[in-house]
Amino acid sequence: MSLEKLTRDLISIDSVTGDEDKIVAYIEGYLKEEGYSNNIELHDGGLVVGNSTERSVIALVGHVDTVPISDEQENINNTEIIYGRGAVDMKSGLAVMIRTIINSQDKNIIGIFYKGEEGLKEHNGLETLFPKINQKFNISLGIIFEPTNNEAQLGCQGVLNAELSIRGLEAHSARPWLGDNAVYKSIPLLEDLKNLKPEPIYVDELEYKEVVTVTTITGGTAKNVIPGEVICGINYRFSPDKTTEDAVKNLTNLLSGYGDLLIHDFAESAHPNRKDEIVQKFINITGVKVEPKQAWTDVARFTSAGIPALNFGPGNPDLAHKANEHLAIQDINDCFSLVQQFIKEEA
Amino acid sequence: MSLEKLTRDLISIDSVTGDEDKIVAYIEGYLKEEGYSNNIELHDGGLVVGNSTERSVIALVGHVDTVPISDEQENINNTEIIYGRGAVDMKSGLAVMIRTIINSQDKNIIGIFYKGEEGLKEHNGLETLFPKINQKFNISLGIIFEPTNNEAQLGCQGVLNAELSIRGLEAHSARPWLGDNAVYKSIPLLEDLKNLKPEPIYVDELEYKEVVTVTTITGGTAKNVIPGEVICGINYRFSPDKTTEDAVKNLTNLLSGYGDLLIHDFAESAHPNRKDEIVQKFINITGVKVEPKQAWTDVARFTSAGIPALNFGPGNPDLAHKANEHLAIQDINDCFSLVQQFIKEEA
Repeated sequence: MSLEKLTRDLISIDSVTGDEDKIVAYIEGYLKEEGYSNNIELHDGGLVVGNSTERSVIALVGHVDTVPISDEQENINNTEIIYGRGAVDMKSGLAVMIRTIINSQDKNIIGIFYKGEEGLKEHNGLETLFPKINQKFNISLGIIFEPTNNEAQLGCQGVLNAELSIRGLEAHSARPWLGDNAVYKSIPLLEDLKNLKPEPIYVDELEYKEVVTVTTITGGTAKNVIPGEVICGINYRFSPDKTTEDAVKNLTNLLSGYGDLLIHDFAESAHPNRKDEIVQKFINITGVKVEPKQAWTDVARFTSAGIPALNFGPGNPDLAHKANEHLAIQDINDCFSLVQQFIKEEA
Repeated sequence: MSLEKLTRDLISIDSVTGDEDKIVAYIEGYLKEEGYSNNIELHDGGLVVGNSTERSVIALVGHVDTVPISDEQENINNTEIIYGRGAVDMKSGLAVMIRTIINSQDKNIIGIFYKGEEGLKEHNGLETLFPKINQKFNISLGIIFEPTNNEAQLGCQGVLNAELSIRGLEAHSARPWLGDNAVYKSIPLLEDLKNLKPEPIYVDELEYKEVVTVTTITGGTAKNVIPGEVICGINYRFSPDKTTEDAVKNLTNLLSGYGDLLIHDFAESAHPNRKDEIVQKFINITGVKVEPKQAWTDVARFTSAGIPALNFGPGNPDLAHKANEHLAIQDINDCFSLVQQFIKEEA
């Protein structure tokens, strides 16, 4: 089966986060039908395929879930471009993984197909799978098939989510001068964050852009009451030169003057490890462009366990989660060829 | 029973909007026990008491419900001051109404005790009661016992509630430059409304202050998405010189440049009718201070039916709905005396 057909088939299977059993079963069945004879293990967190050996292995890693399908999702019929939810993130990457695994059964390659990446951190399938995989296999490199335009996008940003509460004083809305409108008190925060330019941070000569954004705002309890509190949801993307602790300090320094800051949740950043031998080999063998990953990915889980990892996959990441999500079939074929080049020499 | 004791008893009965049956039954029972022998009619909307005659009647009007009791509600023990939810709005006013009705059974007075004033307009008990009352009685004056510090607070402001939607463009929060943050796009609106001074409007030489306020704000769908829409709830208090239609025009002119305006609901204003003969008599006989009503009250329902009405009751309206809601017992006794003076001459 062609990569194109496989990608289209994978897109046609609904697999919104929490509803991944069908696609996991499809991948398992497909591998068997296509004559894959190494171990296939089904876990709660997803599928792990490949034999355990003394030698080190390369892990091909992909999440099988998508974000929910938009009402306006475009599914345009086109012979050179594939449209649809997951086209970019990351059914096309899964197709490359699956065909690579089948074509290279004799190589030291394993595949990890996990659930729940697009949802809450605590429901991410790799959370439970990773310790088992790490114990069973000696992984030399993790390749995360997130969309990267077939660039090696190294490391990843960390994420900090916080809530900033700004307090005012409630009053009857017919006499607003008796209160202190918390919505209006949020203006200086909004103004300052709006004017905050993305801060370039260089790690391994890669430029990561740190950004702090108000992503949600909620205030007021009733139509006829001057609001006594506004809560701004703050999303901070910090670069791989910082630990989560550094990031908490930064955000606290930046925001505590505006209100009460409550750190909500976080995900660690990952160092690009550009000088790692195997990362350099990947870059040299494939000849792909090297870029920073301007987002968080599960590359962080490998990096924090001391395993080199990189993001590499077909499709434009800017189109992920969009109603017009699409990619060129050529992009999938190119990705596959580049992975074969690397595996031929390294696995 | 003293006005003080009656007020304290009324406060002790929970009667949050939607749960008024107990207090209605108490008032009905109290009137009978105290020897009230005129008609008492129980309707879904509340209680109507008094006999229908050829002569015109004065309607004493009060809502029996309160807003919900705050966790921090103060119920301080004090011999000169009464604390508690409803102390001001308007259990003390109800007490004055009840004792007046009992003391003046032979006068042309009716009492209207209605449900649901503090809730949604469509659940206001007077909505269903008013047409029946208006058909049965020839009302010459409605006295609404809302707290007014024992001033004659004339007319009332109208209310317009609207939603203003400001649109941006969604994007991944790691790359905010690909989107257009709708929360930040709301800043000019918030800034301009914050700086909008209350506009004084004079009607019958009374100064009403028109105000436009953002009372609620909601924006953003997820922690990791640049928000594509923010909705601001707008509350406009317009003066008695304007119809609701005028107010819609005003608000549209003021706000349509900032986003899409949707008018949600409204309540009409009421003219002060200061020059009405019976309103002038009330002012002359009682000698009370005359002020504008800087809020909406059910006086509007009487005014729009062509019946003169005014707001008059014990307690500071600024303490209504507050956790420290309280008033002096002297205030209740003074209110009662002033009402007796008026009734002696006019009912």
